[in-house]
Amino acid sequence: MSPPEIQGLLVQKYGGSSLATAERIRAAARRVARTAARGKPVIVVVSAMGDTTDELIELAYSVAQRPPERELDLLLSTGETVSATLMAMALHDLQQPAVALTGLQAGIRSTRVFSRARITDIQPARISTELLHGKVVIVTGFQGVTEDQDVTTLGRGGSDTTAVALACALGAERCDIYTDVEGIYTADPRVVPSARKLSEVGYEEMLELAQLGARVMHPRAVELAELYSMPILVASSFTDTPGTLIHRDGDSKNTMPMEVRKNVRGIAHDTDVARITLVRVPDRPGVAAAIFEPLAAASVSVDTIAQSSGADGTTDLSFTISRSDLPRALEITQSVAPSIHAASVDTADDLAKVSIVGTGMQSAPGYAARMFGALARAGVNINIISTSDIRITCVVSRDHVEDAVRVLHTAFELDRED
Amino acid sequence: MSPPEIQGLLVQKYGGSSLATAERIRAAARRVARTAARGKPVIVVVSAMGDTTDELIELAYSVAQRPPERELDLLLSTGETVSATLMAMALHDLQQPAVALTGLQAGIRSTRVFSRARITDIQPARISTELLHGKVVIVTGFQGVTEDQDVTTLGRGGSDTTAVALACALGAERCDIYTDVEGIYTADPRVVPSARKLSEVGYEEMLELAQLGARVMHPRAVELAELYSMPILVASSFTDTPGTLIHRDGDSKNTMPMEVRKNVRGIAHDTDVARITLVRVPDRPGVAAAIFEPLAAASVSVDTIAQSSGADGTTDLSFTISRSDLPRALEITQSVAPSIHAASVDTADDLAKVSIVGTGMQSAPGYAARMFGALARAGVNINIISTSDIRITCVVSRDHVEDAVRVLHTAFELDRED
Repeated sequence: MSPPEIQGLLVQKYGGSSLATAERIRAAARRVARTAARGKPVIVVVSAMGDTTDELIELAYSVAQRPPERELDLLLSTGETVSATLMAMALHDLQQPAVALTGLQAGIRSTRVFSRARITDIQPARISTELLHGKVVIVTGFQGVTEDQDVTTLGRGGSDTTAVALACALGAERCDIYTDVEGIYTADPRVVPSARKLSEVGYEEMLELAQLGARVMHPRAVELAELYSMPILVASSFTDTPGTLIHRDGDSKNTMPMEVRKNVRGIAHDTDVARITLVRVPDRPGVAAAIFEPLAAASVSVDTIAQSSGADGTTDLSFTISRSDLPRALEITQSVAPSIHAASVDTADDLAKVSIVGTGMQSAPGYAARMFGALARAGVNINIISTSDIRITCVVSRDHVEDAVRVLHTAFELDRED
Repeated sequence: MSPPEIQGLLVQKYGGSSLATAERIRAAARRVARTAARGKPVIVVVSAMGDTTDELIELAYSVAQRPPERELDLLLSTGETVSATLMAMALHDLQQPAVALTGLQAGIRSTRVFSRARITDIQPARISTELLHGKVVIVTGFQGVTEDQDVTTLGRGGSDTTAVALACALGAERCDIYTDVEGIYTADPRVVPSARKLSEVGYEEMLELAQLGARVMHPRAVELAELYSMPILVASSFTDTPGTLIHRDGDSKNTMPMEVRKNVRGIAHDTDVARITLVRVPDRPGVAAAIFEPLAAASVSVDTIAQSSGADGTTDLSFTISRSDLPRALEITQSVAPSIHAASVDTADDLAKVSIVGTGMQSAPGYAARMFGALARAGVNINIISTSDIRITCVVSRDHVEDAVRVLHTAFELDRED
């Protein structure tokens, strides 16, 4: 992607809830027109209206038990085409020239992996031409096109990824993600009423928060933005309150004065957690490969892995997965268990994860101890622990996870204004 | 269009009412699969499901007062993409490999006249490849693509035209039009209960019937079929009763033995008729041009024109148009009237046309007299008369048109089996 620089370019992405009705589309168009009226070239990336994608999937399953993925992708792509054309029409109605482009017309080339294609290249000639003619360019999110002109969809987080990829390919100033929340918070405000909105956050912190259940942005879009150092503003499409800026210098270690900085930036949690444990597996080489290779082959995404050695030369090997993958993963695990001489296979599907995230944690000790202490005082039992440079995650019972988020939010002083 | 001949190829087109629900799509898919199971290569052309196109137009007008045509065409094209993918999925479910192609993917190139584009060329490489791989190829009707990859729609009769154009370009054996009626009738069966289905009809007769209000097929598709001598079968998608074959040798003068032939093939009628009359226009050159040139420039389609000269050197000039064009046409006529010294402008919007059609009329006299006599005996007053080689049309009051159809159906012995 070699950027043919268009001075001052902004990319704005609107999610499905921001486009759910004709009135909301007109409201989003007014926001776009205001930006364009300031003389800014604008690319708008749209998702399908409201629940359109789910409705199209339902329609597909009403005619076929197993809709082929190529056809399903072409079907689903119509959702974004509808919202893109409506956005262009609403802009015309505001006297703002605009043109809607499909993934194909916008030159968004992808791999031929239907339902979860990756963008391989953007050929921005058409977009550049339209921008130079003073038009707002509306691009359908979530879709790409293969070399032989088949339409693909980009899978989860696809529209965010389209927006960030276009911003990177065309050298935009910034990529704005308009959604139904006002930004990134120190914790889920539905769980912690005193949670505060962050004015800025770094890519790595955002990645951890996104991976850990903050549903505002998909990790793959954040990763792409980090790669190209593209600033992202997450804001509400319904209000004019300032959102959260995700950028290179947004990490807590950079943005806060030494003396007052809070090294934990936010508390993330995720209730979509199931666990499988292989009980008393003889501790020898090859055990992990024997179990995780077939899981990977079946596209089961394994999250946390923990192994605890016993005195008798056996270990308990536990791993977590999303709940929807449990039946498939269990079947595979049970078929492998005899060959590695596991005593039994144990499962739980009533779990959750709670995590503390912050780049400042790297250089300061004691965060783990403080986390475990706070959870212990609140009577929350910890199942599995996993850590990264900027994150500590505990797997706990789902019944206790909201309590856990609240006590950690207080323990790390996130309730208080800086 | 140089046909890359695929042996035994059939094109089947399904209209919106044949695809209005998931159940109907599955029923249509079963019909397609039966044909494919006989070893026939099949191309299926689909319209949008049920009232989808109207719903999309309504959606467009809910976001914009005047939706731009380029965006409207791209929006409307999604309707056919949805039904094409669903048809492909339903075929997969029946173990029949199938692939859905958009107008762009199918290589249907068109002029850049949005909302009423004409097909300029078909580049059938992708279709041929898919057929050779044993797939049923589903093509979205009603849409084309410009040289610069913008999506167009083909206007009224677009899906029929797509089907016939594909049949011609790929050298199909036949083009089947599946619809919600069982074929072409000697008159509208809702008006004449004794109307009979024709087993075959010629292109010219079909053209006249189509232009005169038989809504089963659009004239432009019939014209294209005639140009390439492509046989068309019109049949019901809901039953297995034989339909009507439209073909080169289907004209009444060819198909009936001399002695028993009925030279009138059918009675057509159309209630969408308005009339404008310029009263007492001085009879001099240039009058017709002065009025019809500005109407043509405003895209008002003028149907029948009649002029009656009076003794005083003036004429009354009448013409008919569709009722929706009346306000626009009247405005233009009134602005022109003073310059051609018309005494006044008179209008009527409560009219209808009734026509007798048949190639056999060319060579046999007396049809006009018989028609006028039958109408007179039934008390039906004739406003305007127009004729072609194979047709006589009378403009009558709308209140009387159904009576007119019935008396003519009887007068020309169309009630009786051959």
